[in-house]
Amino acid sequence: MDISIDPVAAVTNDDVKRLDRQGVFHSWSTQGSLDPLVIKSGAGCKLWDFDGREYLDFSSQLVNTNIGHQHPKVIAAIKAQAETLTTIAPAHANLARGEAAARILARAPKGFAKVFFTNAGADANENAIRMARAFTQRDKVLSAYRSYHGSTGSAIAATGDFRRVPNEFARGHVHFFNPFLYRTEFWSRDEEEECARALQHLRRVIECEGPGSIAAILLESIPGTAGVLVPPRGYLQGVRKLADEFGIVLILDEVMAGFGRTGKWLALEHFDVVPDLITFAKGVNSGYVPAGGVMVAQPLSDYFDEHFFYGGLTYSGHPLAMAAIVATLDAMDEEGVVENAASIGSRLLGPGIAALAERHEVIGEVRGLGVFHAIELVSDRQRRTPLGAEQMGRLKRAMVTRGLLPFVVENRIHVVPPCIVTPAEVEQGLAIIDEALSELA
Amino acid sequence: MDISIDPVAAVTNDDVKRLDRQGVFHSWSTQGSLDPLVIKSGAGCKLWDFDGREYLDFSSQLVNTNIGHQHPKVIAAIKAQAETLTTIAPAHANLARGEAAARILARAPKGFAKVFFTNAGADANENAIRMARAFTQRDKVLSAYRSYHGSTGSAIAATGDFRRVPNEFARGHVHFFNPFLYRTEFWSRDEEEECARALQHLRRVIECEGPGSIAAILLESIPGTAGVLVPPRGYLQGVRKLADEFGIVLILDEVMAGFGRTGKWLALEHFDVVPDLITFAKGVNSGYVPAGGVMVAQPLSDYFDEHFFYGGLTYSGHPLAMAAIVATLDAMDEEGVVENAASIGSRLLGPGIAALAERHEVIGEVRGLGVFHAIELVSDRQRRTPLGAEQMGRLKRAMVTRGLLPFVVENRIHVVPPCIVTPAEVEQGLAIIDEALSELA
Repeated sequence: MDISIDPVAAVTNDDVKRLDRQGVFHSWSTQGSLDPLVIKSGAGCKLWDFDGREYLDFSSQLVNTNIGHQHPKVIAAIKAQAETLTTIAPAHANLARGEAAARILARAPKGFAKVFFTNAGADANENAIRMARAFTQRDKVLSAYRSYHGSTGSAIAATGDFRRVPNEFARGHVHFFNPFLYRTEFWSRDEEEECARALQHLRRVIECEGPGSIAAILLESIPGTAGVLVPPRGYLQGVRKLADEFGIVLILDEVMAGFGRTGKWLALEHFDVVPDLITFAKGVNSGYVPAGGVMVAQPLSDYFDEHFFYGGLTYSGHPLAMAAIVATLDAMDEEGVVENAASIGSRLLGPGIAALAERHEVIGEVRGLGVFHAIELVSDRQRRTPLGAEQMGRLKRAMVTRGLLPFVVENRIHVVPPCIVTPAEVEQGLAIIDEALSELA
Repeated sequence: MDISIDPVAAVTNDDVKRLDRQGVFHSWSTQGSLDPLVIKSGAGCKLWDFDGREYLDFSSQLVNTNIGHQHPKVIAAIKAQAETLTTIAPAHANLARGEAAARILARAPKGFAKVFFTNAGADANENAIRMARAFTQRDKVLSAYRSYHGSTGSAIAATGDFRRVPNEFARGHVHFFNPFLYRTEFWSRDEEEECARALQHLRRVIECEGPGSIAAILLESIPGTAGVLVPPRGYLQGVRKLADEFGIVLILDEVMAGFGRTGKWLALEHFDVVPDLITFAKGVNSGYVPAGGVMVAQPLSDYFDEHFFYGGLTYSGHPLAMAAIVATLDAMDEEGVVENAASIGSRLLGPGIAALAERHEVIGEVRGLGVFHAIELVSDRQRRTPLGAEQMGRLKRAMVTRGLLPFVVENRIHVVPPCIVTPAEVEQGLAIIDEALSELA
């Protein structure tokens, strides 16, 4: 191993930033204008740079480190598996892989039979779509405009937000409007009306596209990047009924919302709905080793017992990633991590954010569950005008300067600390957001 | 960590197989008819099951463990990085990430400026295609029928082999015939004619599709899964000239052929050709932690300094994967692993396989470079009729029974041991193939 990768006193933030700008091409950005934050190490909800400067992580990176940074049991499991076997082809049987599948199925709704492992969330959705298309022998996939399902070829076409538009290389993807009362597409006055109208709209899209041509409806249980859009009570059940009526496979994307984030193992548990396929990644092992996958319900599993599955990837069920899954889920169980997310959410984070909204005119709406919240910022409360990019940039810098690593998307702060966040850290984080909002005003 | 993941005496092959069949959904297969080989651990070119049964790995799994299994320096680097920081969002700057990019660029042709990291080869190709489309503002991608570029939505549409057909959800992908003299599509009599005709065919496809609509030509430097199809001398240079003539981006896919496999750092070095984008995965860190990426030449890098790049993924530049890249490339350097692949290939593996072809009527052709060879099996040497599936199945079982883990594709044995393979292991492996072929006859 090269000595320079082992952080030593001589390495500075500037060295790391220079190395980054010399060779690293970044996601979702204009490369010429980047000024990345340097991060050296972490533990729990804290991160440090090479000067020892500390950041409180209220982003969970890309909403993936549900168990926090560097959980000792997960690190130990990765090291132990690294000593046994890091990688093996997907065709073989491996203990860590079998154990990981069993651990995940234990947290799935009843009636789920198999797990197909991928590298991340995008290819989880890719393969769920592939399964639905094969199973139904239909082509079209319906998904929501306010959604993100990954950036590979068919996943990006299934994506609803602006990142789809430059990447529309697929056919058979149709988008509909999902419920979001604060910015209703249906002229609704309350949640109940929003729910009924969103379902009526979806029914009309299905009818107009031709039910017999639709393989799947793909929905995030709680659309995440789109703004933590907790669906109205009854919406997902209504979608389930439509899927049943027309023989459509229902895929729920739990990549961001799953594995503790909402204070339940899976976000779908809040809505009493059972889909046919569930996609996951991120929280399943907090991203300590890249992994994702698809939980497959019995009827689809049975179908593929008899029919060839035309999909695969080299690192499906990668032992190192699997060992991290097993250790993560076991540690979350033993340490009550999901319960902590629920309790922090309902007792402190939810009320704390609501209190901010009372004090700051710039907050248009707050919403969320568990440690999965969004603060929607507006320049005009009446018109609900999204706060502009320049002000959002200033707000972000004000938070980072105060030692908070926030998750800022468009005109929103997503408040998404690790599920292990403590009351003191919630207090600290909310105080920084409060100060930054005051500075902005 | 659950104790059952730590291999103990009590765990049996049957336990692991049962766990696998209970919960694991496998790549590219009919789930009901699987009987996976159980693998517990490995070292170098050897693998073991829970009974201590040993296998000589002549597959490198999915042609990824170029440095062999469990290389101590790479394992140490993974463990060291695991203790510092396993994961961090792609937006931040991280030392391991910057170091990995620098290590890779040091092995790229001159004029390469940046590395975009992905989880594997499929999304490497996805993002190279995305870059080419943005850079040229054109839509179409030309790739070869005899190719495999990954199974995500646009990568699978770019794929040429049978796995594309059930997955054709994208538009703008056009396939052409690449050179393969043994099964020529151009009625050629020799390599030179095959080369000239394949280039003429590609020129005609470009002209007929409309040069102004073509963003990229995507080619494996040496098509791998398609049969280790070493292109005729001059072919890739001819493709480069066509790309230049029509302003098309040339993407070379080095996912399987790169990082030592052919006895050079990159397979393109055999052909004196410099593409605009190079995709990689597998050998870059032997798959110890899932990773892939795109090497970006200066003109495209400059373009994205000014233009937004519409692509990204949560685990881009994952620190654990990056640490494995740094350690793998350093160890390969220090230990002459690439040189070993070259020398084994030219002195032992190539001649050994040629000798088999002289003894076995069933061998139609052998070809390859370094530790990247294919044995093409035929039921009729004159007609070159591919050997049937039943006989290939028997042959595979005969090799596995003798303790060899082979890489069998259609009517071929791909002879693809790790690049660290020793003369004694080559002798052992070829002897087993020899016996299995004799048993078949």
